[in-house]
Amino acid sequence: MKKKYLLAPGPVQIPPEILLEMAKPIIHHRTPEFEKTFADVQVLLKELFESKNPVITFASSGTGAMEASIVNIHSPGDEVLVVENGKFSERLGLICKAYGLKTDILKIPDGEAVEPSEIQKRLDQNKNIKSVLLEYSETSTGTMNDIETIAGIVSKTDALLVVDAITSLGVVEIPCDRWKLDVVIGGSQKSLMLPPGLSFIWLSDRAWERAKKSTLPKFYFDIHEELAALKKNTTAWTPAITLINGLHIALTMMKETGWQNLYAKNRQLMEIIHVGIAALGLELFSKSPSVSVSAVKVPGGLDGNVLVEKLKDEQYITIAGGQSELKGKIFRIGTLGWIDHGDILVFFGALEVVLSQMGYKFTPGASLKAMQERLIQYAQ
Amino acid sequence: MKKKYLLAPGPVQIPPEILLEMAKPIIHHRTPEFEKTFADVQVLLKELFESKNPVITFASSGTGAMEASIVNIHSPGDEVLVVENGKFSERLGLICKAYGLKTDILKIPDGEAVEPSEIQKRLDQNKNIKSVLLEYSETSTGTMNDIETIAGIVSKTDALLVVDAITSLGVVEIPCDRWKLDVVIGGSQKSLMLPPGLSFIWLSDRAWERAKKSTLPKFYFDIHEELAALKKNTTAWTPAITLINGLHIALTMMKETGWQNLYAKNRQLMEIIHVGIAALGLELFSKSPSVSVSAVKVPGGLDGNVLVEKLKDEQYITIAGGQSELKGKIFRIGTLGWIDHGDILVFFGALEVVLSQMGYKFTPGASLKAMQERLIQYAQ
Repeated sequence: MKKKYLLAPGPVQIPPEILLEMAKPIIHHRTPEFEKTFADVQVLLKELFESKNPVITFASSGTGAMEASIVNIHSPGDEVLVVENGKFSERLGLICKAYGLKTDILKIPDGEAVEPSEIQKRLDQNKNIKSVLLEYSETSTGTMNDIETIAGIVSKTDALLVVDAITSLGVVEIPCDRWKLDVVIGGSQKSLMLPPGLSFIWLSDRAWERAKKSTLPKFYFDIHEELAALKKNTTAWTPAITLINGLHIALTMMKETGWQNLYAKNRQLMEIIHVGIAALGLELFSKSPSVSVSAVKVPGGLDGNVLVEKLKDEQYITIAGGQSELKGKIFRIGTLGWIDHGDILVFFGALEVVLSQMGYKFTPGASLKAMQERLIQYAQ
Repeated sequence: MKKKYLLAPGPVQIPPEILLEMAKPIIHHRTPEFEKTFADVQVLLKELFESKNPVITFASSGTGAMEASIVNIHSPGDEVLVVENGKFSERLGLICKAYGLKTDILKIPDGEAVEPSEIQKRLDQNKNIKSVLLEYSETSTGTMNDIETIAGIVSKTDALLVVDAITSLGVVEIPCDRWKLDVVIGGSQKSLMLPPGLSFIWLSDRAWERAKKSTLPKFYFDIHEELAALKKNTTAWTPAITLINGLHIALTMMKETGWQNLYAKNRQLMEIIHVGIAALGLELFSKSPSVSVSAVKVPGGLDGNVLVEKLKDEQYITIAGGQSELKGKIFRIGTLGWIDHGDILVFFGALEVVLSQMGYKFTPGASLKAMQERLIQYAQ
């Protein structure tokens, strides 16, 4: 009977409306019914990406679309610049290297965003850079890069800007056309409130032009095959039918909420988390905090792994700990998709209980009181 | 209120037990709960593939595992022999070419199986052939190749045998170790009674050895990354969590039925379809009929597209028509997964109605009577 809360930075809680849609008897994908759904989904995806250009959908987890973003716009020997400030941006670099690209890594300390001027400098120094690849929100450290400013720089050069937006798509606005982005990657198990198994890739006109000349080998993730199929309202290979049906419901729910209302709500969730964290004398890990995931430093002397386990086993709240060298040192709360203020209050209630059990000193109720003051302000 | 029947060669009807399992609140994949399920699934997959070797699971549709089977065991410039007798084996060749392999196509007329001696001849003529790739059941024409005999030939050479078993896995026995197969590919939306979105690849010891030396580029479909993760009961990239949970139920249901009972039932389904087809004076398209999918010639003068559409729109039964040059000329009934004798009776009842409406001459009830005679024999 105990209520469980999944507040990790993906996978996320799925509304019953979506779960039940996906539990309906499956239909064949080569039918007018499925093609109608797929066409409706495409219209909604274009609203989400704020673009006239199509959004390609793959049956894969996000890493598949990351690979697609790289193999479709490059040719053997191309030089690329990867901004690495955590585990997921590191993966972008690993994929580039796996495909033999000359990969320059711009390493930024964990928890810091890249200075846009650094990218400008690299592009000035090396005119051969074909693409700049980076995370919008680096999930492993809860850090957001200033994509708008960076896009302003990169779009003035011949290099393409590849943005992994897997955890930021649907959380913050990503106006692909207006910001002049080139390639944007998304995944289903984040703000789109679905199970993992779908990924997305969007390209600008100039990225599509580049894609025509790309000679890196590819087949499953070949966007030209998918574009041809998309024009007939289907996919090149068998689509993840139930997830597409679920996506239709998810995007409809998001549109009904209103895209801007959704983004405003997500920003408020981040803000009240920051208020709660400060009220407990805790500190954020990131110097450029993400709206999608808040990474918090585990206070000195405490074991972060124990904290995360106690939250899960005793409070039934699943969040994420740190990965690799950050293991035990931070904990991370995702604010993706079907989550609202109430979830954050519940989380902080549980966090206070666990922190007090672990011997951390604070004024009981401090976080809830501070957050509530802010919530009342919002309601004025 | 009308009951609908999905009798296509994939996707297939999904038992409510599986649909409801997948509709449960999602759990995080980096947890002991999910790892336990994944480990249990691995044990069951090894029973299905009849092997001591692990089975790798990807979040992708079947084409992804087809690509994985090629990019993981080859290096640039390798020579391969693809047996092409339909649309899906053609795809194997297209993937080989996309990755720059020297691809020799052994073209077999649609509806015919390859003569194993033909493969022997090619292997004798060219000792550089690194792999022989083919379909177990070619879904586009309902044709089954004699994999056991072919494996006997290929296993005596240095070439590896890559078998696309997407529509045959779980339908007929595939004793990977005993038959000395090398690479076997599977997918979720066939006999495994799941939505599309999972694919599988199994490798023999010598295929794993070859894989270590493979230098074709890969990342998402890199089996070494997946093998390392599998040893920790997880996947390299985010798994399709709900589908894995569904797979757990599906494989458990199959095991409870008994693997051999399942294979025997499937063979009976094929046989009664053959009986029904003959009783109506119709003909099978294939000279080597598949147990997974029965392809039937549309009788002269009738339009197969109309037949398939009338079955769907008026009788609520979805089967498949022909693809490419076979469009309108054949229809195909899948006997994959959650389907039994009753479904076949219902199908033939509807087929007789539609054929009579289209002006085809036959004795009403002929197919049902003939099939029923056979069913009563089975029950003795």
